[in-house]
Amino acid sequence: MNGPQFDPGFVAQLEDLLRWRRDVRHFQTCPVADADMLDLLATAALAPSVGNAQPWRFVRIRSADVRARLAAHVDAASGMAAERIADDSRRARYAALKLHGLREAPEVLAVFCDDDPQAGHGLGRVTMAETLRYSTVTAIHTLWLAASARGLGLGWVSILDPDVVTAMLDVPERWTFVALLCIGLPLAPSDVPELERRGWQAREPLADRVFER
Amino acid sequence: MNGPQFDPGFVAQLEDLLRWRRDVRHFQTCPVADADMLDLLATAALAPSVGNAQPWRFVRIRSADVRARLAAHVDAASGMAAERIADDSRRARYAALKLHGLREAPEVLAVFCDDDPQAGHGLGRVTMAETLRYSTVTAIHTLWLAASARGLGLGWVSILDPDVVTAMLDVPERWTFVALLCIGLPLAPSDVPELERRGWQAREPLADRVFER
Repeated sequence: MNGPQFDPGFVAQLEDLLRWRRDVRHFQTCPVADADMLDLLATAALAPSVGNAQPWRFVRIRSADVRARLAAHVDAASGMAAERIADDSRRARYAALKLHGLREAPEVLAVFCDDDPQAGHGLGRVTMAETLRYSTVTAIHTLWLAASARGLGLGWVSILDPDVVTAMLDVPERWTFVALLCIGLPLAPSDVPELERRGWQAREPLADRVFER
Repeated sequence: MNGPQFDPGFVAQLEDLLRWRRDVRHFQTCPVADADMLDLLATAALAPSVGNAQPWRFVRIRSADVRARLAAHVDAASGMAAERIADDSRRARYAALKLHGLREAPEVLAVFCDDDPQAGHGLGRVTMAETLRYSTVTAIHTLWLAASARGLGLGWVSILDPDVVTAMLDVPERWTFVALLCIGLPLAPSDVPELERRGWQAREPLADRVFER
């Protein structure tokens, strides 16, 4: 069997997609069609997984009350994180950042990993149980790219206490919280990370990250 | 600033890419051009990362001796994993699987995560230190897709003791091992996972993985 041949035009467009895929915190409030959400989730499920275990579990947040409690919790966690920053000017810059769109984004998705799935029969994870969580991350990243290709933005929120969020969402005990995602149309696309535009952290040279042995 | 518009043709091709992206264990031995490897690594560095910390560290395995020791270690770890499988027929099926291309693939890459990078100034990882490793996984997945778009296959090897591999590669103490990757032209592209073709684990229904709260 021969696979599809991707021409240089596609490779260049894929590179554009990767360059313009942002972590979005500023969203338009117009809804995402339900069919589009299900398409994105189906695409995410094409991601690789250890032993083909497909350990990702997606929880769509539909309750306004749950969403409000998630947003309040993240704001509180962010306040605590700010207090830990010793340098005054950096703390001020942190306070000026918008770190999530949990109140405006039309879709909020919590992503968990089943840490002991039947699927996969344990293959590949005996010595590295964390590969289940890593597989869940590849599904999130797949969803992210599929959303970006459709003009949708995604923001990954991690300033939170995973135990609190897990309890809030009442999921099975063997699920591990991986990510809280906001999804919707971005206010302002850009090919420069928001944290770089706001002087927090620029991209660094690749040469500092490649080694040989 | 307006981002690029991706047309339905690109979205469909992206879906094709995701469908045909396999975990490859059967490689052709012809080399990957050095410039192509550096292009792939540069593309991988476009991945999202918590606080823009860019915590990925790529170690290209150039020494034949190191490669041989890695392959021997993975074979030993795989033998130990087989012994743990109680069911006879499943153990036989496990033994029949080819689980890595460490001896044939033209390129072998170990990927680590710097668990305390200067970049990012700690943003987003105070309560979830694992987001650094998750960021490293998005870089691996980006590399994987960029490779697939160019017709190259990638196989992620996780049947190993991370401490042994870390010691073998003599990297800084604060680096955590994330993945060992084989890269090269695949022998036989397919849109069905090898573990599904060999009766180990098929894809499961999306409906079992989507919930609401």
